[in-house]
Amino acid sequence: MIIKGRHYRSIWTEKSDPGVIKVIDQERLPFFFEIKELRSVEDVYNAIKDMTVRGAPAIGVAGAYGMYLATLEISPLTVIHEHLANAARYLSSCRPTAINLSWAVGKVLSKSEGITDREILSRVSLAAAEEIAGTEIDNCRKIGEHGVKIIEEISKKNNGKTVNILTHCNAGWLACVDIGTVMAPVWLAHERKIPIHVWVDETRPRNQGARLTAWELGNENIPYTLISDNTGGHLMQHGLVDVVITGSDRTTRQGNVANKIGTYLKALAAKDNCIPFYAALPSSTIDLSLGDGLMEIPVEERDSSELKEVTGYADGKIISVRICPDDAKAVNFGFDITPARLVTGLITERGVCKAEEMEITKMFSDKFNI
Amino acid sequence: MIIKGRHYRSIWTEKSDPGVIKVIDQERLPFFFEIKELRSVEDVYNAIKDMTVRGAPAIGVAGAYGMYLATLEISPLTVIHEHLANAARYLSSCRPTAINLSWAVGKVLSKSEGITDREILSRVSLAAAEEIAGTEIDNCRKIGEHGVKIIEEISKKNNGKTVNILTHCNAGWLACVDIGTVMAPVWLAHERKIPIHVWVDETRPRNQGARLTAWELGNENIPYTLISDNTGGHLMQHGLVDVVITGSDRTTRQGNVANKIGTYLKALAAKDNCIPFYAALPSSTIDLSLGDGLMEIPVEERDSSELKEVTGYADGKIISVRICPDDAKAVNFGFDITPARLVTGLITERGVCKAEEMEITKMFSDKFNI
Repeated sequence: MIIKGRHYRSIWTEKSDPGVIKVIDQERLPFFFEIKELRSVEDVYNAIKDMTVRGAPAIGVAGAYGMYLATLEISPLTVIHEHLANAARYLSSCRPTAINLSWAVGKVLSKSEGITDREILSRVSLAAAEEIAGTEIDNCRKIGEHGVKIIEEISKKNNGKTVNILTHCNAGWLACVDIGTVMAPVWLAHERKIPIHVWVDETRPRNQGARLTAWELGNENIPYTLISDNTGGHLMQHGLVDVVITGSDRTTRQGNVANKIGTYLKALAAKDNCIPFYAALPSSTIDLSLGDGLMEIPVEERDSSELKEVTGYADGKIISVRICPDDAKAVNFGFDITPARLVTGLITERGVCKAEEMEITKMFSDKFNI
Repeated sequence: MIIKGRHYRSIWTEKSDPGVIKVIDQERLPFFFEIKELRSVEDVYNAIKDMTVRGAPAIGVAGAYGMYLATLEISPLTVIHEHLANAARYLSSCRPTAINLSWAVGKVLSKSEGITDREILSRVSLAAAEEIAGTEIDNCRKIGEHGVKIIEEISKKNNGKTVNILTHCNAGWLACVDIGTVMAPVWLAHERKIPIHVWVDETRPRNQGARLTAWELGNENIPYTLISDNTGGHLMQHGLVDVVITGSDRTTRQGNVANKIGTYLKALAAKDNCIPFYAALPSSTIDLSLGDGLMEIPVEERDSSELKEVTGYADGKIISVRICPDDAKAVNFGFDITPARLVTGLITERGVCKAEEMEITKMFSDKFNI
């Protein structure tokens, strides 16, 4: 993405600065655009945990880079593989719902197997992490190509009238190293001059929609309107939404989609109003080991303070205000599972497929050695 | 409701203080418990507009009291009825969705017809407003008696396990002069020692759930947990909700329910998970003139700043923080319409009835002179 004339990924390395991972601090956006440097496994863990880095593909890539940083940490050569296995476990435990994190960490770990030279180990790990990052960007580009056809088709059916897209949370550049999953077809449609408008769910409790998606769309001059998470149903009832596209943090082989809490409610409203609902996702979020997922996918429960307090901008700084009684009990689940029966299709790097076991396993069988 | 040992209505008059309407300032809760005095039609209008007073029955009663204040305003006796008609139009225009406001204002206006003595006019108007307030409280009491049976029945089916009730927005004491509509059966169940627990939707953008419902429940020591508006579907999928009860701002004769934006999404999720969904409402919110209502009920659009900024408590005071880019466009619809097909029943002062034209018109035919 181009910010003030310069291209940025949301996470990257620089040759001139080995041993340092740079990330856009997503906790400070849209109020401040700041770069944070991560220099240890601990740094990476904390950045993922506190959502400095967030989004399924991005946390996968962050975990992969974390494994590279693990190779730089001082430990006797004899126990280095034990050290790496520990780092992998530690990083994977950070956020449980998105499969990308453990998948990417595992991928780098497997590349390190059998290597005993410390320098080679670091080089191989970094290369593996860079490859994952590159592949995710490439996947986003392909998701864009496949997904934009859906938008084009709706535009044609609408006789060129503006296509209204509703999205929940942020599945843009920030969440995906570059380009984005949901945002890929959106950018492309805009580039191709298809008139579009995006309804942006604010996405409580962390307001990724209000903070990040709104900021990304504004940066690209794509028309959007911010709405509360409660509003999508009303808009759909009044014919103001043509398609819903969300990301996915984990997709089961039956096509059930774990995504930001509240996604299920939007999918229900889409179904009730005969509006297509798509999830845009790279295959790194697919978990073929799970069929249903409703009981199996671990749904992250985050600190209740994220719900009891809202963080925003006032008087030139970022501050938090409490929105409920001080002693209120609150729970803060991060994700829900949208059943495949509500999903019109999955927009993947290999094309759009139905949210059905047959289609998904057929499309990705080679990838998962089925 | 008892606050610190003293009984309060959310809106009331005192004989020792004629010409003054007192209200609990709902904008300051739960951070500060403050009473505001309204001394003119303008004061009442502003208090309803800025949500110092809110909730369908409460704004109806506020409007009625506003008509009493109108009789006290100086105008030549020859034009006093014109003045009252203007005040009625002005007050009714304040918030368009809840039918209670224009209904209650109209009721007081009709009582003033033909009266030319200024003192009698004031006395009659005040008496009419007090009667509406008393009737609304009485209705809440009856709603409680009818509604608690639903909770009792679920409790029996659950073999006495805690009944989990989900509610959206605030339909408690504050919204209804006293007792509340949704809260009436909840208080009663608690009083009768039926184990209950309430899931409280925070209810963006104005957070009436997080601020008001949470505070009311805490004040009565009823177990509750605050959740984001996105969370209800996830809880229902996991068997953690036994019944959904919301209020209503306007109910059509076909049983469609206009209520706080987001209610429709919860009703969809309840249906999808075979969970009963009830609306609790006094007949003052029923609008028999409307069949469907989806296109006819005016859905209030409020200022976008209510969405772009969140108001809460920090450093001993109430402040607002911006949660999105400064130049973000946002829309803020206040209500949505839940179709009758998603509503298990309406809990009214006359009993529980199906959300069906036949049942509704039969139950209330005398009231509406059908």
